[in-house]
Amino acid sequence: TKVNKNFENLVPNYLFADIAKKTNEFIKANPDKKLIRLGIGDVTLPLAPVVVEAMKKGCDELGVKETFKGYPDYEGYEFLRTAISDYYKSFGVNVSADEILVNDGAKSDAGNIGDIFAEDNVILVTDPVYPVYVDSNIMAGRKILYADGTEENNFCAMPDPDVKADIIYLCSPNNPTGACLNKEQLKAWVDYANANNSLIIYDAAYEAFITEDDIPRSIMEIEGARTCAIEMCSLSKTAGFTGTRCGYTIVPKALGKLNKMWLRRQTTKFNGVPYIVQRAAEAVFTEEGQKEIKENIGYYKENAKVISETLKRCNIWHVGGEHSPYIWLRCPNNMKSWEFFDYLLEKANVVGTPGSGFGPSGEGYFRLTAFGTYENTVEAVERIKKL
Amino acid sequence: TKVNKNFENLVPNYLFADIAKKTNEFIKANPDKKLIRLGIGDVTLPLAPVVVEAMKKGCDELGVKETFKGYPDYEGYEFLRTAISDYYKSFGVNVSADEILVNDGAKSDAGNIGDIFAEDNVILVTDPVYPVYVDSNIMAGRKILYADGTEENNFCAMPDPDVKADIIYLCSPNNPTGACLNKEQLKAWVDYANANNSLIIYDAAYEAFITEDDIPRSIMEIEGARTCAIEMCSLSKTAGFTGTRCGYTIVPKALGKLNKMWLRRQTTKFNGVPYIVQRAAEAVFTEEGQKEIKENIGYYKENAKVISETLKRCNIWHVGGEHSPYIWLRCPNNMKSWEFFDYLLEKANVVGTPGSGFGPSGEGYFRLTAFGTYENTVEAVERIKKL
Repeated sequence: TKVNKNFENLVPNYLFADIAKKTNEFIKANPDKKLIRLGIGDVTLPLAPVVVEAMKKGCDELGVKETFKGYPDYEGYEFLRTAISDYYKSFGVNVSADEILVNDGAKSDAGNIGDIFAEDNVILVTDPVYPVYVDSNIMAGRKILYADGTEENNFCAMPDPDVKADIIYLCSPNNPTGACLNKEQLKAWVDYANANNSLIIYDAAYEAFITEDDIPRSIMEIEGARTCAIEMCSLSKTAGFTGTRCGYTIVPKALGKLNKMWLRRQTTKFNGVPYIVQRAAEAVFTEEGQKEIKENIGYYKENAKVISETLKRCNIWHVGGEHSPYIWLRCPNNMKSWEFFDYLLEKANVVGTPGSGFGPSGEGYFRLTAFGTYENTVEAVERIKKL
Repeated sequence: TKVNKNFENLVPNYLFADIAKKTNEFIKANPDKKLIRLGIGDVTLPLAPVVVEAMKKGCDELGVKETFKGYPDYEGYEFLRTAISDYYKSFGVNVSADEILVNDGAKSDAGNIGDIFAEDNVILVTDPVYPVYVDSNIMAGRKILYADGTEENNFCAMPDPDVKADIIYLCSPNNPTGACLNKEQLKAWVDYANANNSLIIYDAAYEAFITEDDIPRSIMEIEGARTCAIEMCSLSKTAGFTGTRCGYTIVPKALGKLNKMWLRRQTTKFNGVPYIVQRAAEAVFTEEGQKEIKENIGYYKENAKVISETLKRCNIWHVGGEHSPYIWLRCPNNMKSWEFFDYLLEKANVVGTPGSGFGPSGEGYFRLTAFGTYENTVEAVERIKKL
């Protein structure tokens, strides 16, 4: 048996392991210090009550012969696909239920979508980058180009007409930087893709944090997107589903056979999302569900604001934190990412994430997140301010 | 963007669509006839009460900040991996918790496992075959060889020393035939694999139907298996989890880097199984859980027995139905598979599955399943007997 040699080209991903190691060493050496973690990329607020109720009702149904559910539809139950379609309508985007495929989180689809494409496609990612886009394509042996995020472009890399790429991964609001593409910027990417016969894989996982009309929540808001873009989204950050696992992928019918190819991929290598999880997701899209999840998002956004305003007062350059739970800052005094990590841990007892862990353009930058408690976030920024 | 051309080599999988079409046409033309479906491959009995309770408790935990769960461990929660490890111990097999990776059903892993192998491996499947093994390898462009199931070998194809294959898919009790490999037969496959440096992907999805010591429930019962086999299993048929989605894959540490490669694949393209589903699965492995699921399995096995005994009395050659919910029979009077489908539908108003839909060796054979109600199963076989 021959293994896939491309795995040898993967960079060992020790970022969060290294953070945990350094943090644990610090705790051991300083048991009396109160550590605050602003490095966490996982939600902390519980599921909305309406979601829990829907899930429990689903559990009960599975325990009774008359309402028991076996194999789910491969593309997701129609009740959920219709709810998602209606959600898009609520901000003016027409996506029909049969263009939507329910999944167990955007990460699975972002990782697996490559199955329907040839190996000799050239990939373009914006750097710093969510590692899944890079690693899944390294596994497939594809060539990867980087569009560099910089302070000059506010970490919104734009297309270079001289660079030819077949598949482009975009994430807005961005993970890890929190930077957002406005309509004009996203239009430039869509135009580039249509002009070059490229495909955009658009990751909208943080769309629910957007509260400004000029920032698109979906690439499908942009003219021309339906002929060049697949959109992926997740309820992980929208509704606290990181441990519940549900998302969806939109493959517009205007993309021709790609819609059928992705369904065939899924019917072959996936067996659908649990019934109870789809009922939970459906509840997110009800009026009550939207009200409840917006409270949680509002809580995280308030944390982000607290961090962002403190950085402003300290004259620390940063992006994100407005339509995103992430704040991306330049390390003070020209420190490198890991240097600042150590500094912040020792002097302020605050844990963040070194930007260099997300790609070469991240060196010298640092990520803070808004998923902690309000009290801890306020205390953490007070400590940072004192430094 | 260039698509994956290998998809063009997939045979359109219309089997169940064709069955549905013919069945619906019959219903329309004969609204007064009572149709009995013995073609269904999905469970029909509800989840065990202890499973429903565990799941609801999990839902409640997700609704409270103190017990909320975010991202699950990639390899599955330790509580579940330990429960699975203990389950294996109960029939004398040592599999450590860190050789077990929890998944959302065996199908996903059977489809995705190819990611860690090179494209130029030669694949061997036994025919008739569960289509996932074939289609996932066609998508990857691999060469596929077939070991033919026949009446002579009781649909247990054995290794041919002159045929060299790198990766072998085995499923016992088999889907679709219900045939089981005994210890000696499985040992022959393990010896072949070790001698040829091949890997066996062993699908044990129906192991819970086995009630005979000489039929292994796990390939890990066989000496030498740990250096040549990966085992996949699912709670779909064991505990009625087809709509709940949980299974596991065992990658023995003796396989060297394959264990780490599969974990890396999963951390890149998967984000774990919902917490509530893992709690549900944990409940399956409790004493009460085992008792409850065995009642359901006993019910299905009684149906299988009823079918099998009737076929015996009618002198219709068949396998399966003893340690499996599937009965695989030779179509009477040399009918072809679809011919017999039509005959059975029109004369007995019973729906089954044409064997030819599972591969060339299935032509002339037919699958009946034990997942209906007892009353319907009895009535169906009475009708068949009259023919």
